[in-house]
Amino acid sequence: MPNVTIDFWFTMGSTYTCLSVARYQALAARAGVAVRLRPFKGVGALTGATALPFVEGTAKMRYMWRDIERRAAACGMPLRLPVAYPAPAPVRANRVALVGVREGWAAEYLRAAYRLWFAEGLGNGSEANLRAALAEAGQAGEAERILALADGAEVTAALDAETDAARALGVFGSPSFVVDGEVFWGDDHLEDAIAWARHAKL
Amino acid sequence: MPNVTIDFWFTMGSTYTCLSVARYQALAARAGVAVRLRPFKGVGALTGATALPFVEGTAKMRYMWRDIERRAAACGMPLRLPVAYPAPAPVRANRVALVGVREGWAAEYLRAAYRLWFAEGLGNGSEANLRAALAEAGQAGEAERILALADGAEVTAALDAETDAARALGVFGSPSFVVDGEVFWGDDHLEDAIAWARHAKL
Repeated sequence: MPNVTIDFWFTMGSTYTCLSVARYQALAARAGVAVRLRPFKGVGALTGATALPFVEGTAKMRYMWRDIERRAAACGMPLRLPVAYPAPAPVRANRVALVGVREGWAAEYLRAAYRLWFAEGLGNGSEANLRAALAEAGQAGEAERILALADGAEVTAALDAETDAARALGVFGSPSFVVDGEVFWGDDHLEDAIAWARHAKL
Repeated sequence: MPNVTIDFWFTMGSTYTCLSVARYQALAARAGVAVRLRPFKGVGALTGATALPFVEGTAKMRYMWRDIERRAAACGMPLRLPVAYPAPAPVRANRVALVGVREGWAAEYLRAAYRLWFAEGLGNGSEANLRAALAEAGQAGEAERILALADGAEVTAALDAETDAARALGVFGSPSFVVDGEVFWGDDHLEDAIAWARHAKL
């Protein structure tokens, strides 16, 4: 098997990213592929879009909540949707995630943050979400240090640089999986990205 | 097995609908579910959207062509993408499809029309596409009658009524699969719609 890595690009402002956060580790382990978590700043920073992808009162937004609920149920996640959208502070949540990637606790933080948002209504990046998610990721005693680091100039610049890197690869939304130069957009395409990593085709 | 039917809502202005048109019959037959083809007027008429979903020069548009090409290759369809977008006359193409649904040749017409668009560059609804697709659907001798019917007041009103029905169901894009009140949006979710039809869950 080739030594392949999937880059899982995301922003914690994204709703559908919840599903990939819940699913990627088991799928990747079963397939024998490595996944690298790569937060970017946000979809607006990536593409210049000024509108949110989902607008209150539209059929598309109602569909999004129902779709996530249905798919979460299929993988055993009990969610209470809809919740408040957009998330209060996704950029800060992403900066914390970048610290987590460096320090090795990002996967646990992501799972906890999305559970707190979608099952308990504490939106990503809110002070309550950040502190509880860090605690669930085993970082309760490190929260002050981590938040200071995440709010600092170096991490802020690093997240901007990652956003530029994502854009250069053709990423325009979250979640996106990049393998061998191929972009796969959306939780629905996680399996396709894994298949591509294993066989370089679908 | 329950006697279930999936409503396959579409507009021929949609690019991704190509994949579902190519795939739905074999999948539905294997699963023992019936599929009803239901054209609507267009996404703008459905949702009030004034912008096209894909804009020239964006990462999202480049991704859309690559994604369709990749997925079409995986199911053995040789396409030559990108082609001119948007299609020249999707509303007229949809009116012809509605006549085809009534008369029983819509599936063949749809497959032919999308092959002509995506492999030969003749956009949906263009005179050349309509005549060639009708011929491939065994309707060469009926083309004048069919086009006159499709351009008439009754079919025009019927397509508007279908568009209203789609909107009432929560449809906002193409392709959409509706089964038992559940909407599944996108070719990626055709298998989910079939699973829902068989088991009323994913």
